[in-house]
Amino acid sequence: MNKPYVRLDRDNAAVLLVDHQAGLLSLVRDIEPDKFKNNVLALADAARYFNLPTILTTSFETGPNGPLVPELKALFPDAPYIARPGQINAWDNEDFVKAIKATGKKQLIIAGVVTEVCVAFPALSAIEEGYEVFVITDASGTFNAMTRDAAWERMTAAGAQLLTWFGAACELHRDWRRDIEGLGALFSNHIPDYRNLMTAYDTHTTK
Amino acid sequence: MNKPYVRLDRDNAAVLLVDHQAGLLSLVRDIEPDKFKNNVLALADAARYFNLPTILTTSFETGPNGPLVPELKALFPDAPYIARPGQINAWDNEDFVKAIKATGKKQLIIAGVVTEVCVAFPALSAIEEGYEVFVITDASGTFNAMTRDAAWERMTAAGAQLLTWFGAACELHRDWRRDIEGLGALFSNHIPDYRNLMTAYDTHTTK
Amino acid sequence: MNKPYVRLDRDNAAVLLVDHQAGLLSLVRDIEPDKFKNNVLALADAARYFNLPTILTTSFETGPNGPLVPELKALFPDAPYIARPGQINAWDNEDFVKAIKATGKKQLIIAGVVTEVCVAFPALSAIEEGYEVFVITDASGTFNAMTRDAAWERMTAAGAQLLTWFGAACELHRDWRRDIEGLGALFSNHIPDYRNLMTAYDTHTTK
Amino acid sequence: MNKPYVRLDRDNAAVLLVDHQAGLLSLVRDIEPDKFKNNVLALADAARYFNLPTILTTSFETGPNGPLVPELKALFPDAPYIARPGQINAWDNEDFVKAIKATGKKQLIIAGVVTEVCVAFPALSAIEEGYEVFVITDASGTFNAMTRDAAWERMTAAGAQLLTWFGAACELHRDWRRDIEGLGALFSNHIPDYRNLMTAYDTHTTK
Amino acid sequence: MNKPYVRLDRDNAAVLLVDHQAGLLSLVRDIEPDKFKNNVLALADAARYFNLPTILTTSFETGPNGPLVPELKALFPDAPYIARPGQINAWDNEDFVKAIKATGKKQLIIAGVVTEVCVAFPALSAIEEGYEVFVITDASGTFNAMTRDAAWERMTAAGAQLLTWFGAACELHRDWRRDIEGLGALFSNHIPDYRNLMTAYDTHTTK
Amino acid sequence: MNKPYVRLDRDNAAVLLVDHQAGLLSLVRDIEPDKFKNNVLALADAARYFNLPTILTTSFETGPNGPLVPELKALFPDAPYIARPGQINAWDNEDFVKAIKATGKKQLIIAGVVTEVCVAFPALSAIEEGYEVFVITDASGTFNAMTRDAAWERMTAAGAQLLTWFGAACELHRDWRRDIEGLGALFSNHIPDYRNLMTAYDTHTTK
Amino acid sequence: MNKPYVRLDRDNAAVLLVDHQAGLLSLVRDIEPDKFKNNVLALADAARYFNLPTILTTSFETGPNGPLVPELKALFPDAPYIARPGQINAWDNEDFVKAIKATGKKQLIIAGVVTEVCVAFPALSAIEEGYEVFVITDASGTFNAMTRDAAWERMTAAGAQLLTWFGAACELHRDWRRDIEGLGALFSNHIPDYRNLMTAYDTHTTK
Amino acid sequence: MNKPYVRLDRDNAAVLLVDHQAGLLSLVRDIEPDKFKNNVLALADAARYFNLPTILTTSFETGPNGPLVPELKALFPDAPYIARPGQINAWDNEDFVKAIKATGKKQLIIAGVVTEVCVAFPALSAIEEGYEVFVITDASGTFNAMTRDAAWERMTAAGAQLLTWFGAACELHRDWRRDIEGLGALFSNHIPDYRNLMTAYDTHTTK
Repeated sequence: MNKPYVRLDRDNAAVLLVDHQAGLLSLVRDIEPDKFKNNVLALADAARYFNLPTILTTSFETGPNGPLVPELKALFPDAPYIARPGQINAWDNEDFVKAIKATGKKQLIIAGVVTEVCVAFPALSAIEEGYEVFVITDASGTFNAMTRDAAWERMTAAGAQLLTWFGAACELHRDWRRDIEGLGALFSNHIPDYRNLMTAYDTHTTK
Repeated sequence: MNKPYVRLDRDNAAVLLVDHQAGLLSLVRDIEPDKFKNNVLALADAARYFNLPTILTTSFETGPNGPLVPELKALFPDAPYIARPGQINAWDNEDFVKAIKATGKKQLIIAGVVTEVCVAFPALSAIEEGYEVFVITDASGTFNAMTRDAAWERMTAAGAQLLTWFGAACELHRDWRRDIEGLGALFSNHIPDYRNLMTAYDTHTTK
Repeated sequence: MNKPYVRLDRDNAAVLLVDHQAGLLSLVRDIEPDKFKNNVLALADAARYFNLPTILTTSFETGPNGPLVPELKALFPDAPYIARPGQINAWDNEDFVKAIKATGKKQLIIAGVVTEVCVAFPALSAIEEGYEVFVITDASGTFNAMTRDAAWERMTAAGAQLLTWFGAACELHRDWRRDIEGLGALFSNHIPDYRNLMTAYDTHTTK
Repeated sequence: MNKPYVRLDRDNAAVLLVDHQAGLLSLVRDIEPDKFKNNVLALADAARYFNLPTILTTSFETGPNGPLVPELKALFPDAPYIARPGQINAWDNEDFVKAIKATGKKQLIIAGVVTEVCVAFPALSAIEEGYEVFVITDASGTFNAMTRDAAWERMTAAGAQLLTWFGAACELHRDWRRDIEGLGALFSNHIPDYRNLMTAYDTHTTK
Repeated sequence: MNKPYVRLDRDNAAVLLVDHQAGLLSLVRDIEPDKFKNNVLALADAARYFNLPTILTTSFETGPNGPLVPELKALFPDAPYIARPGQINAWDNEDFVKAIKATGKKQLIIAGVVTEVCVAFPALSAIEEGYEVFVITDASGTFNAMTRDAAWERMTAAGAQLLTWFGAACELHRDWRRDIEGLGALFSNHIPDYRNLMTAYDTHTTK
Repeated sequence: MNKPYVRLDRDNAAVLLVDHQAGLLSLVRDIEPDKFKNNVLALADAARYFNLPTILTTSFETGPNGPLVPELKALFPDAPYIARPGQINAWDNEDFVKAIKATGKKQLIIAGVVTEVCVAFPALSAIEEGYEVFVITDASGTFNAMTRDAAWERMTAAGAQLLTWFGAACELHRDWRRDIEGLGALFSNHIPDYRNLMTAYDTHTTK
Repeated sequence: MNKPYVRLDRDNAAVLLVDHQAGLLSLVRDIEPDKFKNNVLALADAARYFNLPTILTTSFETGPNGPLVPELKALFPDAPYIARPGQINAWDNEDFVKAIKATGKKQLIIAGVVTEVCVAFPALSAIEEGYEVFVITDASGTFNAMTRDAAWERMTAAGAQLLTWFGAACELHRDWRRDIEGLGALFSNHIPDYRNLMTAYDTHTTK
Repeated sequence: MNKPYVRLDRDNAAVLLVDHQAGLLSLVRDIEPDKFKNNVLALADAARYFNLPTILTTSFETGPNGPLVPELKALFPDAPYIARPGQINAWDNEDFVKAIKATGKKQLIIAGVVTEVCVAFPALSAIEEGYEVFVITDASGTFNAMTRDAAWERMTAAGAQLLTWFGAACELHRDWRRDIEGLGALFSNHIPDYRNLMTAYDTHTTK
């Protein structure tokens, strides 16, 4: 009856960044803006660091939803970029699904705005089609905690696993010895408390 | 073991508004009154927008529970209206169940006051009879968050799916291209932040 | 896969009040004291109103845990009263289980202090033995919300259903017409907002 | 040493609505959007109901701050409207101060976005020039509660009085007998709980 | 510059209970209903215990605001009862002020609903006329904490002292030796934790 | 108009610990028990560390209020200990005031349970008699935050200065160079985060 | 469908303390530091009291993560201590798994920092290998409540049971009569409210 | 009696950054780390943008408190940097006061860690010596909100004005026309919502 432990595998995972658009971001109120911005960029940096194929998509970006935030465009200049003409569930867009299939990966790491729609809909669809779905909770935002909680319940009941960007990075990395510098830099850039630990450590040990 | 993804289908869904009565509303304290009023009316507007058959019911409306809020009566003048003489679980009222069966729909969207009774009881009964049940979390209210959380656990364990009015509207609409104006108006009327995005967009693009 | 809807049945339910002792109550901090006292007494009044066999038990009441609160003793002068000599899980006490079996009921309504021990342990044991267990969330208290949340997860995973005293009363009563006065009095005595509705209603309609 | 009680006087008060602009509103996170929108419109309706001279002003409305929300423009089509070319403190704009002086009033009711800048700066300036300043706390918004609390402390230390729109309306009206219908309508339109009281009252008393 | 310490004096204090009406109570959301009801009755019991002259008043009680809660009427059957025909600030009603002057007391203990209007207005007026004003914070309620905080700032700036019913009772009693039984009973009836201390103490010491 | 900066002076300060009794502590709910216990002991340790004359007092310790917590007795075996026979305001007890005067200090550091009574009353009395009063906010506890906030407002309006035990220790110490070991030990014993900093520092620098 | 009730058994349980390191502890913000420190030490004391084999492990302790907190080292001087050279999931370290297998126990009690990584990863791995896993929620900490909630959902879906240190101690002890003194001391040392009950009880009953 | 409005003046203000050290930052828990880091850097950027003389100081930086965060060192390479050998109140350090006097400014903008010590002590000292003090609330942090609130009360009673970095920047800039680009960049870099407004604006208006 227990759900088996499926670990994120850096050789078998792709990242989907869904609708992090300048207009839609004003709807996000379950996480503070400074923190949410940091989380999204941390996930993006992790995707790059682990060389995970990454797919960007937007909903109606020529209207009030606004353009994709420029930082994400800049970080993934060559990534598939699907500006959906109208489909709310990104999975209803053929190009999006094609791009995913083209990666050949079976594990999908999903984050987006807003959680109960732009994240939950494709997550549920992907599970239906046999993918292992990992939702990055803290790089996904929505109107309020009550809405988020309901969306989490719906996705976990369907089989999605919930992780933060930090948890995902740790599960992808597995062992510090693969690259201490690289993972340390990722943490230092996105976890102020960890950066402080490193600063203090460096200072104390170089005396 | 995973719960399959059952999507809301505008051709197969009916809406049940249970006991949104002027007296009972004073019991609702897990959502702020301004927000709750907006959510209930947003769900009602969505039901009309998608032409979903809608059924109204009240509990003991001639007593302290008070009358149905007039806005809902006004929005659905021709809807079945079952003033239950005493049954607490609306599903125990034959007329209510008959009205549901008459719609011929298999998906039921339920909201009401209070969540753990007026929503949960018919939701659990409907699932028993084979309906697919979607609870609109933010158009349902109760005494406090602790009570709500317990009710959510009971309903999800039984198989209900939890959604907000916004999530439901998105799942029903599927594609902006069906009707941009209509969905935009629904959002503009009930999501102040989205209205602001539209106002700014219109101003900026018409310069 | 869904948990079937098992309704509380006034002809088949017993109530277990576990360790509501004067000393232990000082440990309860996930609900405000005024509210918690009201909830416990409301559940007790409901048990009496529905004539449900009720069993009282205490843990080590001659030590620091202190005596059962006198109000509960006074409300159930003839109820089985098991002062456990040491067993922490009341179900480990033979007299307690015997008293339950003597009721001949298959549904157990449980509340107590503290939630993760005095409620959860017998609840889990009762489920093992085939009882249908209903935990009264708001008449059970513990150290903090984090502890409570974990206890709820453990009990629901095991099959318990979570209800408040109000939800339980509604599910037991089924139909206002059985006795409007009686249920109204129960609500009036324990839900200030409902009492106000009744006061206003009576005043307005008798003009 | 005590601050004397200066009451709002409907014959001596003007209303300043400062920078309620579609863009800036996305910065407001110390009040929920549904509630904040309602509060701002309630204050505007109150200003009209009491025939208080009202002045609108915006900051840099042709840029990202965005246009004044259209509802306010619509409610006060003939009010002085000062689109400030750059001054952050509205009091630094001569036209704004002239418009205030032209009202001949000595009491200023101020609300705006964001509290610690667009409200606090002109409030502090107005007190310096001898006006009696009343800040409408719930029609003013800002980044978070911590920021708001500091702004309140600064303004009260300077002599401003803090009021909600409801408190201001009550202080302006003084006696229900002046106009029961009018004040009742204002409350019914902006306080859902009060509307429910009126609905229940009307239903019960007309039986 | 410091405000001098004015102590409540049982021989020089009167109690004003303002607008604790069945309808208006549904507006109170800054304190939980169970707790608020207890606080109001505790203050009333304290007023009786200390034989303080007490004055009841209501606003428009024949309309939606509803009748005074019956418990207060029952506790003070012979108290002056001023059903104001329309004045929002009770101090604007001559009969109310006359009733206060008739007590001959110079200290006024005020509580009511809602805080920023029904409490704050007469409190500010009373200070203007030279009374020493003590606001009972926890027997006064309003829409939300933000509103309450602003009302507290306004009243304290004007010179009011803020106290809970418990603090007031302690300051009035001064010394347990005056009457241990009486004060103990007051606490036992309205502070569940204190009642538990007394229950445990009595049990332990009579062994 | 500004309150002058009066600094705590280790040569001119005494500490008053008021009513930290085993029974009364169950009433404290504005601070978590683990944290509150730590704060009280930290203040006591600081008092010893700085050799400040310290006075203990209890209210009715032979009744339900219970005995002084043993840790405090053990830390100050020779301190004046005034078990008040009934006076609620400790300042009304002559022995208590005598003990204070006997210290010859003009600065009083006060903490106790509950804040609005056992702390506020003697604090206000002491100010009246010309003492400089420093309330240790985090070693004083009461029923809830609302009650505490009102007590703070009353005391600051009267001229008390609010400090935590940490702030007081820093103001008394003035300069780390007086005794690095001692102050470090005080912090290490009562601030887990600081202890961790010291642990990490020691480990890193001794490599 | 229900998860069976697996009780903790003192003869079949081992304790894993994962990465409670001086540096990493600065990342914990979902529990207050004073409380968290107490919880961790309480679990450690319980492990010793019940003579449970206990295993300590650290992640990269020579870097910024810092050393194991000295108290834990001191409490378990002879316990297996695995300073992992790099594996993030402790279960990926052979020595760690060997140490667990060497205990011969089938129940694993796990706590650590941070919850979603250092606790969740080995918990999920252990379940895969057939262990019964009990996560001690309040001796495990992480960045914030949102992260913790997601980690709890992942672990419970996989079959872990969530318990606090207090609940675990109660389930291990089963019956007070085994050793009243010992369990009482454990509670007295780590639950201030319980210590107060004991202090009051002892005082009252020895009079 | 009102405190006069003293405006920040870019020609007469200096900035003091006190003890933002890598170790001490782990003590800050009244603001989330991501947000706090952003606020501190925003204040630093503002200081540079307005060319305000800035002074850095640290407490015991060779010990566990740790080094100044490197970002601040990098931003102000030529600023006076006073590594205090032991004085807790920076104002007790002659070099620090000399550096302030050398700026010739009369307005001091202060931020630091922790609020009630490293900010409050020099703030209170500076007011005593006639400076106008502005505390940047959101670039100052401490153990918890309760501690912060008490520190704010102490500083405002002494005459300090509380401002956020954003409020300070607005008061220093006065008029957007001085430099739209520069102020816009400052906001874009430190207020994600404002950056989004600018992104959307630029996209929409360049179509």
